[in-house]
Amino acid sequence: MNITRLNTKYLDSINRRIDQKTKPVGALGQLETLATQLALIASNRQGELANNIKISKPTALVFAGDHGISVEGVSIAPSDVTRQMVLNFIHGGAAINCFCTANNITLKVIDAGIIKPIDDDIKAQHGNFIEQRLGSGTHNFAKQPAMTELQVEQGLDFGKHIALKQIEQGCNLLILGEMGISNTSSAAAILAALTGANITDCVGSGTGINSEQLALKKQLIEHALMRIQNNNSKHILEQVGGFEIVQMVGAILAAAEAGIAVLIDGFIVSAAALLAKQINENVGDYLIFAHQSDESGHQLLLREFNATPLLNLNLRLGEGTGAALALPLLQAAVHFYNDMASFEQAGVTV
Amino acid sequence: MNITRLNTKYLDSINRRIDQKTKPVGALGQLETLATQLALIASNRQGELANNIKISKPTALVFAGDHGISVEGVSIAPSDVTRQMVLNFIHGGAAINCFCTANNITLKVIDAGIIKPIDDDIKAQHGNFIEQRLGSGTHNFAKQPAMTELQVEQGLDFGKHIALKQIEQGCNLLILGEMGISNTSSAAAILAALTGANITDCVGSGTGINSEQLALKKQLIEHALMRIQNNNSKHILEQVGGFEIVQMVGAILAAAEAGIAVLIDGFIVSAAALLAKQINENVGDYLIFAHQSDESGHQLLLREFNATPLLNLNLRLGEGTGAALALPLLQAAVHFYNDMASFEQAGVTV
Repeated sequence: MNITRLNTKYLDSINRRIDQKTKPVGALGQLETLATQLALIASNRQGELANNIKISKPTALVFAGDHGISVEGVSIAPSDVTRQMVLNFIHGGAAINCFCTANNITLKVIDAGIIKPIDDDIKAQHGNFIEQRLGSGTHNFAKQPAMTELQVEQGLDFGKHIALKQIEQGCNLLILGEMGISNTSSAAAILAALTGANITDCVGSGTGINSEQLALKKQLIEHALMRIQNNNSKHILEQVGGFEIVQMVGAILAAAEAGIAVLIDGFIVSAAALLAKQINENVGDYLIFAHQSDESGHQLLLREFNATPLLNLNLRLGEGTGAALALPLLQAAVHFYNDMASFEQAGVTV
Repeated sequence: MNITRLNTKYLDSINRRIDQKTKPVGALGQLETLATQLALIASNRQGELANNIKISKPTALVFAGDHGISVEGVSIAPSDVTRQMVLNFIHGGAAINCFCTANNITLKVIDAGIIKPIDDDIKAQHGNFIEQRLGSGTHNFAKQPAMTELQVEQGLDFGKHIALKQIEQGCNLLILGEMGISNTSSAAAILAALTGANITDCVGSGTGINSEQLALKKQLIEHALMRIQNNNSKHILEQVGGFEIVQMVGAILAAAEAGIAVLIDGFIVSAAALLAKQINENVGDYLIFAHQSDESGHQLLLREFNATPLLNLNLRLGEGTGAALALPLLQAAVHFYNDMASFEQAGVTV
């Protein structure tokens, strides 16, 4: 895998361009940082300073997978709900559908390994659904490895494949989301395994479990972490990962290798991003963090990237909702980078 | 003026509707609060529970005015820049233009009283410009009242008139922005006058003055505040207001009276909103706060409304930029309120 660090030779030109716009230096705050990153990614991709950035076919890939640990009662909902929500995505009724419609995002739903596959007639009717199953849910990682080494490798490949397909079709901004009952358990375990942070700081109440469930969740994860021998991402995925998570890792790595930006949603997608970064440090240059989730471990996770997310709306839903909501800020950054007049052009004498 | 408080008889139905959507209760965080407010405003306006909300012709009114206090050197730029930026708005080159384009917002630029009027030939060419001047900049409020009682009354009328015109043309969401070199001085004085807060907590460095300028700014404002005899908004406007600010107060009051929502930008627009609220307490029900400005007094001002703004991007530009950037979040709230499936509709068994 060849992920190149963003060449910063364009950085001075980009900053100069932004500073000459008709506004006090820095007055657009975080939007300027965002425009700089987007311009740097675009410049690197085209091999010359990008004077015009364009976000083409922004595409949300929502990966769904089931988690064996769900039988322990660490979530507010049973695993059945994963499949029900996948059907809801397919039929257009979920929050992520609404936000993709609102913000002109193409949405694709991926069965990465939910317990029971989607019926053939439904698959046939809906072009927004893709099946690349790694199994019928992971094993219960509280008791045994979540998946095999082979499933990890295949998952990375599946994720890479689907990302590259979008890029071939003209997408230059990948938006990632997920669905999987109990997957905050997996993400918390990944965070703890990668950073060595205290489990209490990594585990939160997901979409709303009670304190007994929370205590159990911590205990089970702590127990599983004893099997982790090193901070190798593939080993961690095998032990405590999820089918949707491993595919997102593959998608992130592929997007970064292709030189396009990836818009990262909340806690689970950030955990996938951290795994990707452990595989290849350079991946960080291509990531944009959409929102600060209400899930407690997310702040800790974001610190690993030194990231300040664009939104902080107390969301705790996943699905890619935070990322879809943030897209207009990227579009606004592009608009001002491309079209805002310079002091000279506008005859403003500051 | 008859601004009615929002009748909360629809609130239970609205909350029930949102809670039945396919997501854990509260999982869309602040977006749920926003959807509730928008649905409540729409329900009140149509006199029955709104099952479908629609944001029609969102229109940004950017009011420009000059400030006599500018001669004291309390800004990074001279008053000339106000007019230059108005021309930039008219010609489409400013940040607010870019964000309005990005988010499908109609933009109108209003000369509320800049020093030198815009030339006739430019006025004739550009339909997005409106002239309703209260004078050639305010007086230097460090030395004398900024404007007369008559100008205050006329300003409120002008603001009301322009707001009602947009509403007549089908706009049901007013977005307010402003331009006026030195107008953070006016806003800080207003904040201190209305709340009695310490001047140090109200005054910030605007778009970037140095510490000497900041000390002078505080001193001049403190001196001017000695003329304030009560917390009557009209009296405060007369003493330390601005032509763009008084017109925004009129626009906010008219929009609330017409029962439509107003999207409030940063520090200056929030100061206008606080003046409007002091005139009629009920106005608060109709206000949506777009962003937390980097200007230090803004946080204090927002506390007066008990408001948590939607964005926090360290913007300190004004022009309505923060409000324009926040519009897609309102659109997303509308989409999920209107179109997201209920548990029953989607067959999700939580």
